[in-house]
Amino acid sequence: MTYKITLLPGDGIGPEIIGVTIQILEAVGKKCNLKFQFSEALMGGAAIDETGEPLPQETLETCRNSDAVLLAAIGGYKWDNLPRQQRPETGLLGLRSGLGLFANLRPAKIFPQLIGSSTLKPEIVEGVDIMVVRELTGGVYFGQPKGVFATETGEQRGVNTMAYSDHEIDRIAKVAFEIAQKRNKRLCSVDKANVLEVSQLWRDRVTALATSYPDIELSHLYVDNAAMQLVRAPKQFDTIVTGNLFGDILSDAAAMLTGSIGMLPSASMGEGKPAVFEPVHGSAPDIAGQDKANPLAQVLSAAMMLRYGLDEPTAADLMEQAVFQVLDQGYRTGDIMSEGMTFVGCQEMGEALLNAL
Amino acid sequence: MTYKITLLPGDGIGPEIIGVTIQILEAVGKKCNLKFQFSEALMGGAAIDETGEPLPQETLETCRNSDAVLLAAIGGYKWDNLPRQQRPETGLLGLRSGLGLFANLRPAKIFPQLIGSSTLKPEIVEGVDIMVVRELTGGVYFGQPKGVFATETGEQRGVNTMAYSDHEIDRIAKVAFEIAQKRNKRLCSVDKANVLEVSQLWRDRVTALATSYPDIELSHLYVDNAAMQLVRAPKQFDTIVTGNLFGDILSDAAAMLTGSIGMLPSASMGEGKPAVFEPVHGSAPDIAGQDKANPLAQVLSAAMMLRYGLDEPTAADLMEQAVFQVLDQGYRTGDIMSEGMTFVGCQEMGEALLNAL
Ligand SMILES: CC(C)[C@H](C(=O)O)[C@@H](O)C(=O)O
Ligand SMILES: CC(C)[C@H](C(=O)O)[C@@H](O)C(=O)O
Repeated sequence: MTYKITLLPGDGIGPEIIGVTIQILEAVGKKCNLKFQFSEALMGGAAIDETGEPLPQETLETCRNSDAVLLAAIGGYKWDNLPRQQRPETGLLGLRSGLGLFANLRPAKIFPQLIGSSTLKPEIVEGVDIMVVRELTGGVYFGQPKGVFATETGEQRGVNTMAYSDHEIDRIAKVAFEIAQKRNKRLCSVDKANVLEVSQLWRDRVTALATSYPDIELSHLYVDNAAMQLVRAPKQFDTIVTGNLFGDILSDAAAMLTGSIGMLPSASMGEGKPAVFEPVHGSAPDIAGQDKANPLAQVLSAAMMLRYGLDEPTAADLMEQAVFQVLDQGYRTGDIMSEGMTFVGCQEMGEALLNAL
Repeated sequence: MTYKITLLPGDGIGPEIIGVTIQILEAVGKKCNLKFQFSEALMGGAAIDETGEPLPQETLETCRNSDAVLLAAIGGYKWDNLPRQQRPETGLLGLRSGLGLFANLRPAKIFPQLIGSSTLKPEIVEGVDIMVVRELTGGVYFGQPKGVFATETGEQRGVNTMAYSDHEIDRIAKVAFEIAQKRNKRLCSVDKANVLEVSQLWRDRVTALATSYPDIELSHLYVDNAAMQLVRAPKQFDTIVTGNLFGDILSDAAAMLTGSIGMLPSASMGEGKPAVFEPVHGSAPDIAGQDKANPLAQVLSAAMMLRYGLDEPTAADLMEQAVFQVLDQGYRTGDIMSEGMTFVGCQEMGEALLNAL
C-alpha cells in the first residue's frame, strides 16, 4: 500500500517534531510493507510569512488530495497582533471547516512511567484514560451573527452566536456513542442545559439517540460540574462528548491532569477522507530550533493516523509500543524529565525510537 | 447599628446551614454591638412548591428592602424536569438580573488545615489564594436572541447569544482592578479572543482600562489555557476576571483545587445595595435534613457579607477567626473528615463555633 500524506509542519517546534516523526513512519512502513508519499504544505505563521494568509487555497487542495494529514503546531508571538483574518488560528479554523472535520478526538491518558509529572496525587490519576469527543465545526466558534457592532447608544457590542442544529448534534453524538462502544461503554455528555437553550436541545437529541445504543451507559453533566469532577475524580470518566467551546476547555483541563501534555495526540475527522492528526500541545516558540522539543505527541499522532485514518492497526501498535519502550528505557526530553532518567533532545529521542523499532 | 438581612434558605441543606449561621451572626453581633433584623423569603424549589414560581415578586421586594441578602442553596432532583421558567436555577438568574448583581466574587483559598483534602499535591496547592471575579448579568447567559427555532429545512436550531457591550465590560473590569489593588496587584483577564469577536472586545476594553491602574500587573489568558494553568500551577494566579460562562467553569475548577468546596463563600454585587452572599456548594439533597451538612461556607458567606456588604470588618474578622479556630481544634463534618479528627454534625459544628467566639 502507498499512502499520500500531507505534512503541515507549521511553526515553532513543528518542523523538528515532524522531522523525527517521518523517520519513524518510514521505519514502521518498512516493517509493515507500507509506503508513504509525503507532500509538505504551508500553514499558520509560516504560510502568512510566505503568502500573506494562514491557509492558502493550495494547502487545502493538497490536503484534499491526500489520504491523511499530519499537522504539527501553529502560531507564535510574531503573528499575534495581526488582524483576525491573517492569524494562524484562523487558518486552523479554516482547515477544520474546509475539510468538514466535525469530530475532534482528544484522548487524555496517563502514562504509568510519567505519573509523577502530574500535579495530582498518583492515586487520583493512576489509570486515567479519558476520550474527549469534541464537536469541531459548529457552536460559538462558527455561529452567525458574529462581530462587533455599534449600538443605538453609540456603544460597541461584541457578539458571537452559540448554535447547534439537530443534524450537527446527532452526527457528533453518533461518533461518540460508537467510540464509547469500543471503550468502556460509558458516555458522559456535557452541556449547560440548566441555562442555555442550545444545550437543552443538545441534551434532548443525545438522550433520544441513546435508545439506539442500549449497550452504552449515558450520563449528563453541566460543564461547571464536569470541570470540577475532572479535578476531583478523573477516573470516573470514560468517553465525554461535548460542544466546540466546552470541548476546548475540558480537553485541555483533562490533558493537563496527565501532567505530560507533550505526550498527547489528537484526531479531527469528518465524513470521509482525509482526517487531520496533530499533537495537543502548541508550537512552543520559546524552544523552537533548539533540539529540545518532545516529539512523542507527534509520533503518537502519526500512530493515531495509522489506526483511525488509514486503518493500519498493526503499524499503529508498533509505533505506540516503541514510545512505551523508550519511556521504559528512561529516555526523557526536558518537559517530562525527572531524577534518575536519561535526558535527551528531540533528535536523540527519535534515535531511541528507531532503535526500539 | 441594626441591619436588615433577607434570608433565602432555599432547598436541601439550605435551612440547616442558615440556621447555624444565624446563631453565629447573633453571637458576633452581641460582641460588636450590631443588631440583625432577619426576614425569611421563599426561593428555588421551596418557592415553586408554595407559589408555582422559583422567585416570587414578593421575595425580590423583600431583598430590595434589605441591607444584604444571605442565600443558602437552591435546586434538587424534584424540580429538575419542570419547564425552564419554573426551575430553581431560573429563580437564581432572576435574582441576579433583578438586583443588578453584575459582579460575582468567588475566592478559592486553601485552608492549611485541609490541604490534605485536595486531590492535588500539597506543594502545588499550598498557599493558593485566588479571587475569581465573574461577570454575572451578561454574556451567553442573558444574550438575545435565544431559543430553539425551526429552520428552513425543518430542523431545529438551538441558539444562545454571547454578547458584551462596552459598559458591561468596563464596570466588571473596574471591580476586578480594584479588588486586585487590595490583593497582590496581579490581574489575569480570561477570554477566547483568538476565536471570538466578543472576547476581542473584552480584551481591548480591559487593556484600555489598565492605563488607569498602573499599579496592577495585567495579563491575558485564553480560557482553555487558563483551565490548564489552574491545574498545572494554581499559585501563579492572584485575581482573575472573566465573563459569565468562563467564570462559571473556571471558578468551579478553582474551587475544587482546594479540595474543600464545603468551605467556600461567594458574593454577588451590583452598583448599590443589597448584595447577595452564598456558599459555592449546592443544596446537597442527598444529605438534607440529616444534620450532616458542613455549615462553614455559609458562615464564611455571612462573614463576607459583614465585610463587603455591611462594611463591618471587625465582625467579619471575628467570624473568620472562629472558623479557623474550630478547624485548628480538629472539628470536621463528613465532607472534610480525615483520620484523627473529631467528626461532628452541622449542629455540633455550630456549637463549636459559638464556643470559639
Ligand atoms: C488555537 C485555537 C483556535 C484552538 C481552538 O480553540 O480550537 C486550540 O485552542 C485548540 O484547542 O485546538
Ligand atoms: C445554577 C446555575 C444557574 C449557576 C450558574 O451557572 O451561574 C451555578 O452553576 C453557579 O455557578 O452559580
